[in-house]
Amino acid sequence: MAKTDKVAVLVAGSWGTALASVLADNDKDISIWSRNAQQVEEMNTLHTNERFLPGVQLSPRIHATASMEEALSGANAVLLVAPSSAMRSVAAAMKPYIQPDMTVIHATKGFETGTLERMSQVIADELPQLEPGRIAVLSGPSHAEEVIRRCPTTVVVASESQETAELAQDLFINSYFRVYTNADIIGVEVGGALKNIIALGAGLTDGLEFGDNAKAALLTRGLAEISRLGTAMGASPLTFAGLAGVGDLVVTCTSKHSRNWRAGYMLAQGNTLEQVLQQMGMVVEGVKTTQAAFVLAQRYDVTMPITEQLHQVLFSGKSPRAAVEDLMGRGRTHEIEETANFREYE
Amino acid sequence: MAKTDKVAVLVAGSWGTALASVLADNDKDISIWSRNAQQVEEMNTLHTNERFLPGVQLSPRIHATASMEEALSGANAVLLVAPSSAMRSVAAAMKPYIQPDMTVIHATKGFETGTLERMSQVIADELPQLEPGRIAVLSGPSHAEEVIRRCPTTVVVASESQETAELAQDLFINSYFRVYTNADIIGVEVGGALKNIIALGAGLTDGLEFGDNAKAALLTRGLAEISRLGTAMGASPLTFAGLAGVGDLVVTCTSKHSRNWRAGYMLAQGNTLEQVLQQMGMVVEGVKTTQAAFVLAQRYDVTMPITEQLHQVLFSGKSPRAAVEDLMGRGRTHEIEETANFREYE
Repeated sequence: MAKTDKVAVLVAGSWGTALASVLADNDKDISIWSRNAQQVEEMNTLHTNERFLPGVQLSPRIHATASMEEALSGANAVLLVAPSSAMRSVAAAMKPYIQPDMTVIHATKGFETGTLERMSQVIADELPQLEPGRIAVLSGPSHAEEVIRRCPTTVVVASESQETAELAQDLFINSYFRVYTNADIIGVEVGGALKNIIALGAGLTDGLEFGDNAKAALLTRGLAEISRLGTAMGASPLTFAGLAGVGDLVVTCTSKHSRNWRAGYMLAQGNTLEQVLQQMGMVVEGVKTTQAAFVLAQRYDVTMPITEQLHQVLFSGKSPRAAVEDLMGRGRTHEIEETANFREYE
Repeated sequence: MAKTDKVAVLVAGSWGTALASVLADNDKDISIWSRNAQQVEEMNTLHTNERFLPGVQLSPRIHATASMEEALSGANAVLLVAPSSAMRSVAAAMKPYIQPDMTVIHATKGFETGTLERMSQVIADELPQLEPGRIAVLSGPSHAEEVIRRCPTTVVVASESQETAELAQDLFINSYFRVYTNADIIGVEVGGALKNIIALGAGLTDGLEFGDNAKAALLTRGLAEISRLGTAMGASPLTFAGLAGVGDLVVTCTSKHSRNWRAGYMLAQGNTLEQVLQQMGMVVEGVKTTQAAFVLAQRYDVTMPITEQLHQVLFSGKSPRAAVEDLMGRGRTHEIEETANFREYE
């Protein structure tokens, strides 16, 4: 009889808990780690996680613990879903309990502030004992609130190693959670991070009641901007036409579940960034990602007009209306669509 | 003093009337043609078009006429917005009044049933006296209901001739209606037509309450499918990453204004195709486009799973739920995302 897989999940936010529930449906043993003793108690006795997934009953297969050692001992795979700002410290704390042949999958969308590293780079830094290719990223259009209700969802796992990508695929795939593999870990990480910037922008245009036409134009320009920076960083441009690119972008910009969209919407209604972050009470990855992308755009010499305008709104007090109007390019004429094929015109 | 441009607009549906209003804002003289004497009377006396744009007051610069000769005489440019099924007969009726140096811009999304020709091909067939390169297409994410309210909108005009594309751009561009040029007329026409199929599919998934994750996956797969057929037909793949591709796809699949989405939604709720078409009372281009794309996919040997499933729902009585479930690919494992770069895995 095959040994049941044990998967350690860190941390117990909404996305970590939703992915743990997919693993529970697949008959895995799940050990979910949280620093918060009260949350551990709640998950083990009531089988709920009210703060992050209100009204949801969790599987008893999900065992919570505040002990890193207990969470990781005997695990074949680790799912890391810490906020980008906490990824390095969580990975460092895991180090003593990580075996070289463990599969480490992360599902966090963002760059590390300061170093501007992608999450897989941060993890590799902190877990040097891992064999090459043991890290994978899971991304795609996947609101936790829908996954927990078993709504049909399609995601991608990317790794430099096909074996690792397929191991991750086998852990998660089931009838409502479809998992595709992809070789482009850079593109999948960059697409997942940068779409949060465009979602903030989409919230702005919606908050200003500019309409669906304007939002669609913003998304199109946003996808081009993501793709430009991503390819400069070494990604395949094709990845941005896939689930981790346009798929994730669309769901984040058009769904009522998106925090980044909501933050942009609240900014458009005249709230300051501080007020928005305080009222949300959860991490808004897009804010830090805007800062990171602003610097990356300079480093890689890439034009990112949406990122630049949002950077001014978030950190220099520019009015959302002026930013969106500048993006719409009032006054300019005779522009050629940047994605077009111009050979005929040259 | 420069002579004011006169633009003839045919016909007076919602999109034709909205585009005529953009031209009116740009101080053009507009002659809009309709076969319907009552509609002509209404537009000239009340300056309204209640059936197609209820509650909207039109500019007095828009003069309606039932005479093709009056509409076209003295016009420098013609805007053709007939339904795809009427395009050939309208173009044929225009023939006696068309000068070789006129600019003919169309904004119709679909293929001709039977011949499966693109609209610019149908127009060129019927107006052989036109100089080469005089035809352009206008497309992009642009709901008429928003354009008429001057919501910020961004579109693309494509022509084989850069001069023609820029002429069209100059006619329409203003502070709320941004116009980019593009050299890929095939891609812009194919993108605009095929997105209506995906919008029908999006209406189906929404009607079945599959959620935002599923719809985003459908859009991503839909974009890949559009791009496959389009490039096989001679389009540039880059066009599908632009306004006439992903931009138009997003707005049509996520906006409450979309007829094709609404038709799919009604199908999902158990209505037959006949009931849907009767209740809509307007042309649903996506139905005929599904038929056309189904044949084109065979002709160009291209895989189009969404088109195939919708074809079965529309014309062979397959249940919407079974179709969407087949698209979600229950039971399959170890699939690789088709947009990925697999060199590392080969």
